[in-house]
Amino acid sequence: MKHLAILGSTGSIGTQTLDIVRAHPAKFKIIALSAGSNWQLLARQIHEFQPKIVAVTDPTAAKKLAAKFTNLLIEVGEEGILQVATAAKADLVISAITGVAGLAPTLAALESGKDVALANKESLVLAGEIIKKAAKKSGAQILPIDSEHSGVWQLIHGRDPAEIRKIILTASGGALRDWSLSKIKKAKIKDVLAHPNWDMGAKVTVDSATLANKAFEVIEAAQLFDLPLSKIEAVIHPQSIVHALVEWVDGSVTAQLAEPDMRLPIQLALTGGDHIPAKTKSDSIISQLDLTKQPLDFQPIDAKKYPLFKVILDAAKKNPASRAAAALAAERAVKKFLAEEISFLGQIDFVKKALKKLQPTGAISLKKISEFQSKLA
Amino acid sequence: MKHLAILGSTGSIGTQTLDIVRAHPAKFKIIALSAGSNWQLLARQIHEFQPKIVAVTDPTAAKKLAAKFTNLLIEVGEEGILQVATAAKADLVISAITGVAGLAPTLAALESGKDVALANKESLVLAGEIIKKAAKKSGAQILPIDSEHSGVWQLIHGRDPAEIRKIILTASGGALRDWSLSKIKKAKIKDVLAHPNWDMGAKVTVDSATLANKAFEVIEAAQLFDLPLSKIEAVIHPQSIVHALVEWVDGSVTAQLAEPDMRLPIQLALTGGDHIPAKTKSDSIISQLDLTKQPLDFQPIDAKKYPLFKVILDAAKKNPASRAAAALAAERAVKKFLAEEISFLGQIDFVKKALKKLQPTGAISLKKISEFQSKLA
Repeated sequence: MKHLAILGSTGSIGTQTLDIVRAHPAKFKIIALSAGSNWQLLARQIHEFQPKIVAVTDPTAAKKLAAKFTNLLIEVGEEGILQVATAAKADLVISAITGVAGLAPTLAALESGKDVALANKESLVLAGEIIKKAAKKSGAQILPIDSEHSGVWQLIHGRDPAEIRKIILTASGGALRDWSLSKIKKAKIKDVLAHPNWDMGAKVTVDSATLANKAFEVIEAAQLFDLPLSKIEAVIHPQSIVHALVEWVDGSVTAQLAEPDMRLPIQLALTGGDHIPAKTKSDSIISQLDLTKQPLDFQPIDAKKYPLFKVILDAAKKNPASRAAAALAAERAVKKFLAEEISFLGQIDFVKKALKKLQPTGAISLKKISEFQSKLA
Repeated sequence: MKHLAILGSTGSIGTQTLDIVRAHPAKFKIIALSAGSNWQLLARQIHEFQPKIVAVTDPTAAKKLAAKFTNLLIEVGEEGILQVATAAKADLVISAITGVAGLAPTLAALESGKDVALANKESLVLAGEIIKKAAKKSGAQILPIDSEHSGVWQLIHGRDPAEIRKIILTASGGALRDWSLSKIKKAKIKDVLAHPNWDMGAKVTVDSATLANKAFEVIEAAQLFDLPLSKIEAVIHPQSIVHALVEWVDGSVTAQLAEPDMRLPIQLALTGGDHIPAKTKSDSIISQLDLTKQPLDFQPIDAKKYPLFKVILDAAKKNPASRAAAALAAERAVKKFLAEEISFLGQIDFVKKALKKLQPTGAISLKKISEFQSKLA
């Protein structure tokens, strides 16, 4: 029986993690849950999964919950979230808070020696060196939840990393993949949010359309698997069936495929990488792949269509501070686009200007991340 | 330094094995070579690789070689081949004789405790139980050389076989894949031998066109990976880029891909499954896969177009003797087709009639295999 704490239980990854726990009650038990402000959904989750520790960021939400669950102490704010991240009885912390807000609790979990199933890519993109140092010191493991990284993890199972020539991550190409450049210039929020294959949050969906998301995943893969950025590539794969490929030094290639469903990588992170069956066939929550349904095709990334991909990776290749600055600027750009303050392609200019303004150099520190954030606000 | 003995060094697998040895002189050394009758090529191989033991089936070829290499004892006939199969100094025997003739030396190698890199599928198809018992008794390993089985082997590396839901082998569909049934009825030998993707011997190329080859490979996979036939499937994949897939019990699927080149599975068998690089980039003998070159598609096997696939597997599901009888009858049918004694589709009737005539039941034995052969001759 593995005891779980979920950071961000009311979000997309959080609710799907609970789907897995619901399907395997003999294997997983919820110990702690945290959310932002969606107290109604959190209340239903508390009722169903009976966690011992609960935290919400929003004080109003905390009051609502406290009134409903009089026997449960409801923790509040950032301090409360850290209580969930370091819950004494948890064996595994699911880090599923979106954006830079997920960094501090992820770090706290690793420092306290908890294994972390990581959906929050910002932790590694902004502060991979800090995160990995903490994990190494405490002996905690970082397990990938992103579908592409879960794919790579499955493929390198039991192999020597020296056998890897390169890793290839696939990208759906986002909602505007088949749009002309002139049409992309006029893309509205609703166009960008119409993602063809994955059901994700708004930020990630915008990042998919610019391929900023894929640049972050390239960085994340380099950090997770201790490989140089030059050994990680990305390719457009419109069907989102193949999630990752590993090319070995002898030219053999292995690939991981599945219907696009985040519950598969989540379940693998929860089991520590073991493939476990659903209890019965009809009970299977992950749908079976039908290879004969559609051809699988792959296209190189068109730099003209996706300039942000290169802008972020070029910054990442310079130094860790520059990598973090680019990621924070891109996060800020998405917010501005979703607030209709800048256009879709305006995001690229915003990131470029931000990098000029911040002049990032050298290693990364939590202080530097805070400074960049203030300057970008 | 691994010492190798090659059974069938002048054939397609034999010569490609020598390509690998030539590329890695510090890793592999040839100890023994055997061939059928192509003494000219064997003479060149002896000259280049300096084996200690050499055998040829054909006595005339033996005389020619003996005259040329006066310091080398040239072994002759089946007895000679067994000398190569059990060469004292060999660490690994490459079993690359085509057809039923490969069974006895493969068995002898395993009985003498030699690991065997197996390209001769008949050994497992005809007598899997006997072969595996011999390997188990002596502690020898059987390593796959067939590209599909090498793919599966790479994919299950370090995994518990209980995690496998099913194995899927791909088939190019052979030279007549896009032909109508009425046109197939009139197929000539030259049509059948025009294989789209692989350069193989005539027997295997005919077997590819009927999918008899794929039925044998399904049986071979069941034997190699100790799985029931019901867990092995096959699918048409015209590009021959994906060689095998494993579907895991949680719905995740992994696949092995490479340009069609037998030197990759051969090299993996020689290394024991490790991916090793070519010495330099330009020296790479296995070409790099370009995913963006063509879409990958998959089609179910059309039972009307490939009746022999089901005939052989239905026989295999009955009992081991029936499985062997079907394989021997199919081998005989190819010979009759290549001798223009029967038509392409006439092979199916021939196998069905042979199974009725032989009435095979129960376990398999070498004696039973001989009896079936005499009755089919």
